Amino acid sequence: MKFQYQNSYNIKEEIERSKIAILPVGAVEAHGPHLPLGTDNFLAERLSDKLAEVVNGLVLPTLPYGQVWSLRQFPGSITVSNRSLISYINDIGESLYRQGIKVFAMVNGHLGNGTALKEAARELYETCPKMKVLYLFYPGMNKAAEEVRETPSSHGTYFHACEIETSYMLYLAPELVEMEKAINDIPDIPLSADVTPTPWEEFTETAVLGDATLATEDKGIYIIDIALKNMVQLIEAAKQETEQN
Amino acid sequence: MKFQYQNSYNIKEEIERSKIAILPVGAVEAHGPHLPLGTDNFLAERLSDKLAEVVNGLVLPTLPYGQVWSLRQFPGSITVSNRSLISYINDIGESLYRQGIKVFAMVNGHLGNGTALKEAARELYETCPKMKVLYLFYPGMNKAAEEVRETPSSHGTYFHACEIETSYMLYLAPELVEMEKAINDIPDIPLSADVTPTPWEEFTETAVLGDATLATEDKGIYIIDIALKNMVQLIEAAKQETEQN
Amino acid sequence: MKFQYQNSYNIKEEIERSKIAILPVGAVEAHGPHLPLGTDNFLAERLSDKLAEVVNGLVLPTLPYGQVWSLRQFPGSITVSNRSLISYINDIGESLYRQGIKVFAMVNGHLGNGTALKEAARELYETCPKMKVLYLFYPGMNKAAEEVRETPSSHGTYFHACEIETSYMLYLAPELVEMEKAINDIPDIPLSADVTPTPWEEFTETAVLGDATLATEDKGIYIIDIALKNMVQLIEAAKQETEQN
Amino acid sequence: MKFQYQNSYNIKEEIERSKIAILPVGAVEAHGPHLPLGTDNFLAERLSDKLAEVVNGLVLPTLPYGQVWSLRQFPGSITVSNRSLISYINDIGESLYRQGIKVFAMVNGHLGNGTALKEAARELYETCPKMKVLYLFYPGMNKAAEEVRETPSSHGTYFHACEIETSYMLYLAPELVEMEKAINDIPDIPLSADVTPTPWEEFTETAVLGDATLATEDKGIYIIDIALKNMVQLIEAAKQETEQN
Amino acid sequence: MKFQYQNSYNIKEEIERSKIAILPVGAVEAHGPHLPLGTDNFLAERLSDKLAEVVNGLVLPTLPYGQVWSLRQFPGSITVSNRSLISYINDIGESLYRQGIKVFAMVNGHLGNGTALKEAARELYETCPKMKVLYLFYPGMNKAAEEVRETPSSHGTYFHACEIETSYMLYLAPELVEMEKAINDIPDIPLSADVTPTPWEEFTETAVLGDATLATEDKGIYIIDIALKNMVQLIEAAKQETEQN
Amino acid sequence: MKFQYQNSYNIKEEIERSKIAILPVGAVEAHGPHLPLGTDNFLAERLSDKLAEVVNGLVLPTLPYGQVWSLRQFPGSITVSNRSLISYINDIGESLYRQGIKVFAMVNGHLGNGTALKEAARELYETCPKMKVLYLFYPGMNKAAEEVRETPSSHGTYFHACEIETSYMLYLAPELVEMEKAINDIPDIPLSADVTPTPWEEFTETAVLGDATLATEDKGIYIIDIALKNMVQLIEAAKQETEQN
Repeated sequence: MKFQYQNSYNIKEEIERSKIAILPVGAVEAHGPHLPLGTDNFLAERLSDKLAEVVNGLVLPTLPYGQVWSLRQFPGSITVSNRSLISYINDIGESLYRQGIKVFAMVNGHLGNGTALKEAARELYETCPKMKVLYLFYPGMNKAAEEVRETPSSHGTYFHACEIETSYMLYLAPELVEMEKAINDIPDIPLSADVTPTPWEEFTETAVLGDATLATEDKGIYIIDIALKNMVQLIEAAKQETEQN
Repeated sequence: MKFQYQNSYNIKEEIERSKIAILPVGAVEAHGPHLPLGTDNFLAERLSDKLAEVVNGLVLPTLPYGQVWSLRQFPGSITVSNRSLISYINDIGESLYRQGIKVFAMVNGHLGNGTALKEAARELYETCPKMKVLYLFYPGMNKAAEEVRETPSSHGTYFHACEIETSYMLYLAPELVEMEKAINDIPDIPLSADVTPTPWEEFTETAVLGDATLATEDKGIYIIDIALKNMVQLIEAAKQETEQN
Repeated sequence: MKFQYQNSYNIKEEIERSKIAILPVGAVEAHGPHLPLGTDNFLAERLSDKLAEVVNGLVLPTLPYGQVWSLRQFPGSITVSNRSLISYINDIGESLYRQGIKVFAMVNGHLGNGTALKEAARELYETCPKMKVLYLFYPGMNKAAEEVRETPSSHGTYFHACEIETSYMLYLAPELVEMEKAINDIPDIPLSADVTPTPWEEFTETAVLGDATLATEDKGIYIIDIALKNMVQLIEAAKQETEQN
Repeated sequence: MKFQYQNSYNIKEEIERSKIAILPVGAVEAHGPHLPLGTDNFLAERLSDKLAEVVNGLVLPTLPYGQVWSLRQFPGSITVSNRSLISYINDIGESLYRQGIKVFAMVNGHLGNGTALKEAARELYETCPKMKVLYLFYPGMNKAAEEVRETPSSHGTYFHACEIETSYMLYLAPELVEMEKAINDIPDIPLSADVTPTPWEEFTETAVLGDATLATEDKGIYIIDIALKNMVQLIEAAKQETEQN
Repeated sequence: MKFQYQNSYNIKEEIERSKIAILPVGAVEAHGPHLPLGTDNFLAERLSDKLAEVVNGLVLPTLPYGQVWSLRQFPGSITVSNRSLISYINDIGESLYRQGIKVFAMVNGHLGNGTALKEAARELYETCPKMKVLYLFYPGMNKAAEEVRETPSSHGTYFHACEIETSYMLYLAPELVEMEKAINDIPDIPLSADVTPTPWEEFTETAVLGDATLATEDKGIYIIDIALKNMVQLIEAAKQETEQN
Repeated sequence: MKFQYQNSYNIKEEIERSKIAILPVGAVEAHGPHLPLGTDNFLAERLSDKLAEVVNGLVLPTLPYGQVWSLRQFPGSITVSNRSLISYINDIGESLYRQGIKVFAMVNGHLGNGTALKEAARELYETCPKMKVLYLFYPGMNKAAEEVRETPSSHGTYFHACEIETSYMLYLAPELVEMEKAINDIPDIPLSADVTPTPWEEFTETAVLGDATLATEDKGIYIIDIALKNMVQLIEAAKQETEQN
């Protein structure tokens, strides 16, 4: 159920019934030649819809601008600072708390948002003591991806516009993928990228971190469904916890 | 043209061709029994689409959370502080500037955002000296609305979920209006509301400021088209100005 | 009664008797060839004195530096940011609250301060819940000015060093007006001034927005007395409200 | 010459002629039974006038609210935080710099402002490299006071509403002193007041730190004239320095 | 070479010779019954000394207070916010830059500091464009630890007062380890700890995340030497890079 | 007793027994040819140790970076802003408060930290109402120094790397003093240094403010012991005060 399509006369009852608000958080960011700039927004949004169906959650409008430091020099990327992102999310969270929400789940489609979301969750932990705040970035995906990927990951935690993320899109937003433009571009990411600020133009010209041509809908289904199942469990456990308090 | 549906390989060219970025800014806010909470988002978004068509602009993803101090106690309202909103918009604006945008036009669907948008524009005036920043809230609508409205406005500058705003929706997002639920509720707004912080629950229970039953698509068309025409002129003049510099 | 002329031994009793603190807020800003830079300070101060007499209020020392973004490039203008102004006023307001003040009325002589004063009032609404905070800028003057003015206003909300403001000075601080230097300079303010940051040097060289030669004491008396009457009613209603809580 | 009494047409020339802006900074603070709450404002203001005459400076409107942490619980005291004060002064200083001022001299009438004024001066040192910023608090007064005082000082740096400060007022603002109410109240200030936050109500009920009955105009003249002479030398040396750069 | 043991007369030459500043960053935090609260400080400090010897770096005084959100409720833990930590480090970094340092390497002994150090490095990337900033947390340790550990890690990224960290101490600061008090306490860390703020008291009473009794100096030597070798390579590559610019 | 050498199992008891936390605060700063850059750290640290012995306090790890505005251009100086220092100390103080500390004594070895420490103490006064916060900078040293010094002080409050501070080092850290390099360099500090931002390179090339060759251990002992005795009294009185509340 989409929050902003409800009206003020029925939303109170819906909140009481559901108690769960789901905020898709994405980014506008370069994703190679075959994926749109809004890839992380589309993924977060559609994954949120699926999640909401299972947990009876209320899907909030997507927060479409994220922290895109690493790719900010690429055409089309728009970045906001962690500080701005944290403030903005905190305000949203505090409003939801006053509205009666008990579980505030951020469904994140962009790795770079992770720091801000975690920090915001910690600040809300103090200001909204009876609300559980979750920051969800495809929980359990690492293991699942290992099981289906045909090429090794180019980095321990990054994945971007590659075999994996393109597979997500083929599952969740296939009409927005131009597979005929997909490329194989496995970068040589230097070890130093983990220990010093390293804009990605230093190791890739395409912003594709892997072999996107190997992406398939099936791989997407396999990983996303595992992540979704984990998300459902985490949210339901969080809801139970708030009910016990 | 929707910015986030482009990819990183073609966006550079599109930016060079257009030079105009349009950011719809709305809010999630109580709008009575007949309009959805996201009314200001839908209006900003669809108006932006129309505008982009005429001026060949690039429509950015909607910024869906605004400053909703006055109605924040109403069911479903979500508010962010001016400070958070200003920071977030400044970051977006600075990214656009680095990407080559020359005219950054914010199409605002929510009066309460006005202060933050103006302040953000002034800060960007310093940091992005060669980009024109516009904050557009239905320019010219006051005079136009006077010509078509059948009931007097309940306040000098406020209009909300009333004959006028409902008419906008009947034109721009008719499928989201439940006219059968529209009510006539003209509040008695005290003079003090202009000089001291006054949450709207002090003078309305419905959040409708007028007679929504009188709304018609024609009224919406009449006013919106005037506003649109003004917006086009303002943006084209701004674009010309940046080209002369 | 001037607050700072009292001593610490009698002020407590005076606060208990009055409960109303009046803060004149002005600016140092270019006002053409015939009015002093401190015009907004003198107006705010003298209007506050008149107001205090009627409502038995305590007049605080004038806050003499305001937000003068639009005219900051003109000789003699001094500007402070909204952020600094808000912080400074919040601190003053919180002190007054601890001292027992129930109505904190800011008498504003400079339109550009409006945003900061309103924002400060909203922040004090949270931190000082039992104090009413008013931001007063000649309430009701628009209608009154229409009745007496001989030339049309050059803008919907701006008025500056013109027929109207000069009339105020002729009433409240005539000894500081050099009418022999008054000029008639009606600017052509572009529509864009309302939607994009527009320093006033773009449309005026004099900072006079109208025909100052038409100013008369009588016009000043007529408008100011209406504004004063409105201010008295607003403050007395606010005081009553705090007494009922 | 009073800055705010000039108009925008002649101020430019005055600034070019003088290059010196003098800002009186005071406070609203308890000063015992015989001195008004605005004592520090009156002293700063009148001392500034005398100073301006000698150095041909331009006296700005008084900044009347200062940092009054120690006495904030006393009736009538109004305090602002160092942070707010620093921001506000920085904005003023930057405006003056853009207006062509070369020496910005803050004449401080309230010891508690010292920290903020020094910090603001250091920040302006970075942002306004060619302007000298001075924070002046009766330079040289300690030695001069020792020469005329009949009772020992109750503290190494504090003096307040006592023999000394009352003497200043008898010289600079005699019409505001009620000597018949002056008292002798020498507090026993604990050593700990210098090493831990200590509101003054812990050691005085009157806010008078000494024997105010011993104040005389002559003592005021003696000390103030020495301070004034020092201020003149400091400002003239600062002005010379800016001219050599 | 210890920076603070040098004097101002010889440090300039040392900086020119070395160009590398090494900042140990630790924390004061509960580390079970057998390790001291300052464990992360001792590790960071002694590792820095070893590193400095190889790369000819200058070791700065240890920054001993870190972000300890997760364990802040445990006896003896002291936590600072990310925001404070970032500001403080930025100031240090900017000073080093002005002093001629080309490589600023933070040797981090506490996982919880990671976010702040990375963010600080990114801010310094803008303000100190010709200095490389590194945030080093035992680079390469994960793989190395897998090779020597006898019990599985209790979490993907956390390790604390366990087989691994105790081994580090047995190598680097053996005199501070009380192995006779070491315990085996493998917690059951819920999956939710990765997606919602989870103070560690929710899953451990001891703050030991594993079997500390299995710690040996040899394991410490094995892992630390690999980490050290990686750190040396990263720093030398960074230094070379700055020399090429 | 050193705080960070304790473990989490015994610290709780130690805190309950002692209730006093002592934080040495120093700086890294030029101190002439004969004293190390970390002089203020060494002094603060060793003085804290002596103090802790007498009052049974817990000595925290030294905060080694302070506000060094005046000497920041000298080789080896590292400066942090007052704002960063205040935030960082506030966080530490709040943690100590939650841990049960009743007296938080900052032993300051660097005059330039005074402003930040006092401000932090005032902020902690609000947030930690039952904890006494002390900022101690050799209390009583001025009088004591007058009694032993052979050359007059070069400034009312400054003393730096001179007869006095070198004597402190000869007493507290003699192994770090190179007396054979000590110099006599009495600067002519202009009066303006007290009223306008004045980097010390304007009046000294050595950073020595006096005749360091006259330093002796005996002078150090004499002054330090007086300061220490004062510190003990202040802390014990503070402790008593918290016990009475």
